[in-house]
Amino acid sequence: MPSVADKGVSRPIGVFDSGVGGLTVVAALMRHLPRESILYLGDTARLPYGTKSPDTVARYTRQNVSFLVNRGVKAVVVACNTASALGLQGLEVPGIPIWGVVEPGAEAAVAVTRGRIGVLGTESTIASDAYARAILRRNAELAVVSRACPLFVPLVEEGWSEDPITLQIAERYLEPVLAQSIDTLVLGCTHYPVLTGALRRVIGRDMVLVDSAESLARAVAADLRAQSNLAAGPPEHHFCVTDNGERFLHIATNLLEPHSSKQPLSLEWVEV
Amino acid sequence: MPSVADKGVSRPIGVFDSGVGGLTVVAALMRHLPRESILYLGDTARLPYGTKSPDTVARYTRQNVSFLVNRGVKAVVVACNTASALGLQGLEVPGIPIWGVVEPGAEAAVAVTRGRIGVLGTESTIASDAYARAILRRNAELAVVSRACPLFVPLVEEGWSEDPITLQIAERYLEPVLAQSIDTLVLGCTHYPVLTGALRRVIGRDMVLVDSAESLARAVAADLRAQSNLAAGPPEHHFCVTDNGERFLHIATNLLEPHSSKQPLSLEWVEV
Repeated sequence: MPSVADKGVSRPIGVFDSGVGGLTVVAALMRHLPRESILYLGDTARLPYGTKSPDTVARYTRQNVSFLVNRGVKAVVVACNTASALGLQGLEVPGIPIWGVVEPGAEAAVAVTRGRIGVLGTESTIASDAYARAILRRNAELAVVSRACPLFVPLVEEGWSEDPITLQIAERYLEPVLAQSIDTLVLGCTHYPVLTGALRRVIGRDMVLVDSAESLARAVAADLRAQSNLAAGPPEHHFCVTDNGERFLHIATNLLEPHSSKQPLSLEWVEV
Repeated sequence: MPSVADKGVSRPIGVFDSGVGGLTVVAALMRHLPRESILYLGDTARLPYGTKSPDTVARYTRQNVSFLVNRGVKAVVVACNTASALGLQGLEVPGIPIWGVVEPGAEAAVAVTRGRIGVLGTESTIASDAYARAILRRNAELAVVSRACPLFVPLVEEGWSEDPITLQIAERYLEPVLAQSIDTLVLGCTHYPVLTGALRRVIGRDMVLVDSAESLARAVAADLRAQSNLAAGPPEHHFCVTDNGERFLHIATNLLEPHSSKQPLSLEWVEV
């Protein structure tokens, strides 16, 4: 019979995002922590967060964290860059570690840069200046150039990731950033890695691209290990969405299949 | 002292939209009904509606109508095309007339077409087929070609209405519609009239453009007159938003100034 401690570590890791983008974080967590169960919440009824005000994003973040904690998660991962940038200040739940995506992304960028870092993100993430502050807190000598890219998410959702029009828009957004001679580029939104092909054609092969999902998954794995909070598996994954669209299921199945079992995705429509 | 009946007709007309787009309907109402007070609700915390499922759009529509009715409006105008297309079926409030934007738009298109009508709208509006059904109910001999244009709203919000990139995207979206030899084009989203310049370059000068806002305002004015439900003024306008962004105030002031007094906009942050 499992002890209380066993039951504790076998509880799922809670992950939330405004929609499907956070599934890239789930995929990274599945690679780094294949024995952990995951409870995912996609707030698809209220997305996007990237154009909303700090007060509203902070309110949604609190509600989503409460939902996951009430469902019994042992830890919370905020996969949404906007929620991480605007919603985590002062947010604490006793006994439940909470990770955002900004700090690991900043950490990774600082580790690899030769001095000049570009940051791309949603309007609200860039307006918050959270990445620049997190980078400069680690090394005040670095230069940071930030740029909001409001059309990137709609372009990804339209399925035009490799389209010539997307290339033109990427050139437009990146021109003032590249003019500052950056050597490292942070993709500060979970949707942006899908645009890597188009972005590479604009930034060239030598620029270091930082995808926060990978850095975040590594940080979560290291912390859980240090806290002796690792599950022994087998994992059980469950996905909740606030809008009952079929789009989530379609994208989730495609994105997660290499990492999960071949069973149908366990999906639930919820209100938070 | 005003009688109860006077108080009845002097109550505001409630108007809601997912965000700022419905202000084009407000401007049209102000032109056609300059003595009517307007209570506007922009559900900016949950926009856009155009990518959300029918169930979620219907739920938001019910909540927004309840909010306006509880605030004492004498009638409700649903300025959002997606909410009109997906949220009005079976929605009735005793004593409160409710208008959507789809029926007046269809009426106007049927009145002017020579036989072939194109309809542009959000993903959810087009998937609902509401415009095509409303048009064919009036005249089953007409041909209707519909096309979702998911990038138009983000392009308007990015301020790229006259940009060469927007022109390319409009060409892409309209190509299959124009191939069907339409003579009339319905702009089935309150954001789209902002793109009239770019659209005209794609569709040419002879195509009839139908902007539902104007048709809707005329229908509301005619119905209120027929019901002896007109206010005597002076009007008092009040605007509510569910997200407390400054963007709404900026856009609203620019859009409505020609029609309203020079007083500062009366703006309130609400939860619905």
